[in-house]
Formats: sequence, C-alpha cells, structure tokens
Amino acid sequence: MIVDCRQISPVVGDFPYNRDLTAQAIAEAAASGADLVVLPELALSGYVFESQGEAVSMAIPRSHPVFDTWGLAAGRAVVVGGFCERDPSGLIYNSAAVVDSSGVLGVYRKVHLWDSESVFFAPGEDPPCVISTRAGELGTLICYDLEFPEMVRGLALAGAELVAVPTNWPLLPRPDGERPPEVINAMAAARVNRVAIACCDRAGAERGQEWTCGTTIIGADGWVAATASELGAARADLDLSESRDKAISQRNDALGDRKPAIYDALFRRQPA
Amino acid sequence: MIVDCRQISPVVGDFPYNRDLTAQAIAEAAASGADLVVLPELALSGYVFESQGEAVSMAIPRSHPVFDTWGLAAGRAVVVGGFCERDPSGLIYNSAAVVDSSGVLGVYRKVHLWDSESVFFAPGEDPPCVISTRAGELGTLICYDLEFPEMVRGLALAGAELVAVPTNWPLLPRPDGERPPEVINAMAAARVNRVAIACCDRAGAERGQEWTCGTTIIGADGWVAATASELGAARADLDLSESRDKAISQRNDALGDRKPAIYDALFRRQPA
Repeated sequence: MIVDCRQISPVVGDFPYNRDLTAQAIAEAAASGADLVVLPELALSGYVFESQGEAVSMAIPRSHPVFDTWGLAAGRAVVVGGFCERDPSGLIYNSAAVVDSSGVLGVYRKVHLWDSESVFFAPGEDPPCVISTRAGELGTLICYDLEFPEMVRGLALAGAELVAVPTNWPLLPRPDGERPPEVINAMAAARVNRVAIACCDRAGAERGQEWTCGTTIIGADGWVAATASELGAARADLDLSESRDKAISQRNDALGDRKPAIYDALFRRQPA
Repeated sequence: MIVDCRQISPVVGDFPYNRDLTAQAIAEAAASGADLVVLPELALSGYVFESQGEAVSMAIPRSHPVFDTWGLAAGRAVVVGGFCERDPSGLIYNSAAVVDSSGVLGVYRKVHLWDSESVFFAPGEDPPCVISTRAGELGTLICYDLEFPEMVRGLALAGAELVAVPTNWPLLPRPDGERPPEVINAMAAARVNRVAIACCDRAGAERGQEWTCGTTIIGADGWVAATASELGAARADLDLSESRDKAISQRNDALGDRKPAIYDALFRRQPA
C-alpha cells in the first residue's frame, strides 16, 4: 500500500488558498498511485491564530463542501488531513477528517491540546476510532496526541493497521545528528504495537513559528520507511499485513503479552 | 547524581565467578564516585540455561549473603542488578534486587518474560515499586518489560525519578546507523514521562547467543547521556530534579495532560 505524506505549507487565515493547495497535493499524490494521502494538522486553516475571531472565521463544519473537493481529487485514494472544525454548538476543535470519494468517513477531534491551542480549541471528548477504508484499518491522531503512548496502544488494540498523524511540529533544538524527538516517539510506538505510523508535518514558517519538517513514515517494524525534510512528499510502500502479525518470537505476542491487571494495580499506586 | 552501568560478561552457571565479578564491578564504580550502579539482568547466574535443573541450581533467595557482599562493595552507592530468584514455594523468577549497605531494599520480579524464559521462570505477579533510596526514587524493570509503555508510565506516575533496567538484549539485525530498537523505546519512554532511564546490557556471548552491548543512560529529556558498546561502563551525571519537573510548556504537563477516562473508553473498544 502506497502511503504519501504531503509536507505542504498552508497560509494561516487563507481558506481558498489552502483548499486549492490541499486539493492539488491530494490530486498529485493520487495521480502517482498513492492509496493513502496524509496532510498536516490544520491544513485548511493554518495554525498560528492571532485571535479567537480568526480561529472562528476559519472553522468549518464536517459537512463542508471542501471535503467533496478532497474526495474528488483523491480518486481511489483515502485522505487524512487536518482542519479547524466548528461544531453545531459553536465549539471549535482541532480536527482531522478521513475522506474518500464517497465522502467523509470519520472525524477525529484532537484530545491533547498543545500550549495556546487550549485558548482556541475545545479538547476532543471522544477516543480516536479505527475506520475501515480502502487503505486498510486506519486510526487517526493529531500531533501532541502522539506523546501519550496510551493512544497508539489503544488504536492497535482496536485493530488499527496504520495510524495517520497530521502534525504541526514546532521546531525545537535537538542534539546534532538526532531525529526530531517526535519521530523517536513514533518509532517506539510503531515497534511496540507492530503498527505502521505516518506523520505528516508541514513546511515553511508561520508568523515566526518554524516547523520541524519532520514528516516520517514508519513501518510496523518500527523503522523509518521514508522522510521529507522540506516542501514535498514522503512516500513508502507498506505491507499492512505486517501490522496484523503481532508475533515477535515463538512464544511472544506484542499485544497478547500485555498484563492489564498488573498495569491497573501499578496505576492505582499513583500519588494522590 | 552519578549513574554507572557496568556492562559486564557473567558466565552462565558459575555463581562464584559472577559473585566476584559483580562485586568487583560495584566496588570499582563506587570507588570512582557512582551514586547508582546498575548491573545486567541475571548477572549472578547467566542467561542461556540448558535445563530447568541448571536454572534451579543457580537460583538463590533474596536473603542470600551475596547481597551483603554487594552492599559492602557499594559503600554509599545503591546497586540494582539481576539474579535468578528462588521463592520459598520453589518457583523461580527472573528478578532484580535493589541493594545498599543496609541490605536489600526491594526485589522486582520480571513481569513480561521473553521467549524461552517462560520455560524456566514464573512471571512476576506484582507491579514494580518505586523505592526511596540515597540515589533518588528508583523504579526497576527488566529487559522485555520496557517494550510495554504501561510500565514506565506507571512508575513515573508513582513518582519514579529514574528507572533502572537490567537487561540481556539479544543482538538483532538493525538498519545501518540505527541505535538498538530497545534504546529507541527507552528514549521515547524517558521523554514522554520525563523520567531518567538507565539500561545496563551485557557484553560477550553465551552459548552462541550474542548480546547487543547496548547499555545506555538516558536523561529525563529523552536524550542519550552515555553509552557503552563493549565490555566496560557507561557513566552519566544526571540531575534528578529534571525528573520531578513535568511542565513542558506554559500550559502543558507531561503527566497532568493525560486523559485516563478517554484511554479507558479507547481500551474498552479492543476486539474480543
């Protein structure tokens, strides 16, 4: 299965530009044979909002026609990409849509909000789902969610073969020669759960915020299959059957070896 | 705080040799100023047992005088090291002792057994503890336990500042230039929990089994502070106050941002 992460550079506050940019990225990926296209977090809105009013002005419902545009551009591919979601209640979420030519298959609302996101967004109240798609059993997380090992673990237990992770990773200092720390987390999560993970970061800078350009596709073996370090795409051909095989020795199973009763006892020990 | 991991090469089945080897390693580390000395998994027995009888012959109770020898060698340091434990019931465990000059402070029995270990050992029935020592709040895990993110997470929630991990990592093929995958897991676990992790692997080979020589000390920031790639020691000076500071942005806390109710809901979704 061809996974294609498009490390694009949306413009904050310019919905028509971002609609066309994302549609073009999807169409290019699909034309070159992608089965799954992953876009960054908040790809339709940009990230560094200056005010609540700007966030609200960029928020769209999940019924918005842009997702028909995505589905049309996708052909036979499946798309996962971030958008600023307006709920009928008026609340705003940092969300990701899973879309194919039949429409919106699902929407995930980011549970763990990073820093000033909590000024603009309500946190998602629901766990992520695993959605059956033409591109396999897909889980979705967004950016900082990946810092919580519980999330990929839960998606793997629920049957995810691949976890798509739209991100906007702020550039942080790191030791020379090291991968972005978020990638190290993703590699560990892939390996211990035997699940593929496709993180699509963004390129460029926005209102002074530089991004990591850390787009990385990781196989169910935990090793990096492809990266992008500038504007462009990371692409890898993954065998999702590897995600269904949790046997890691003659006697061991990555998920079957879990000891939930012991974890429960350990977690009850946490200081009040 | 000086952490010193001694990547020694025990001899399977030779208790007197391993007793002297470990005592010498502890004494050398302590003499050079270590506050915490970590030894490999099953350092007193060796790993690749040929029979149940051999495992039983190497099993000792936690009251064994070798731990007085360790405590004496340690001076003011704390020692964490692996041994083959015989329970009064007759069951054999893959255990690690936490020892100082006052005696055995605690014993952890490996919960997750790797491959043929399940032939020789009973799995530990209890979660790991956090023990207050002269070298800080210590958690202990053993080798394959580290593949379960629940374990370091639970120890961090219970107040661990450092997790000592005696290991025997069997050498696996890995892509050129990559760290051992177990180290990548440990880096991710350190980072997402803001807890230091000290993994002590072993050197040499044993009955045809080569070891990874992957000894690595990782700070609470998730970056590698020291490694050993052959017979010898890895040593790092860690500031454990970093493990107590879980704030990672003005609005974020590595542990406080957890959403246990959402994880519970996610985990209940697992296929039957």
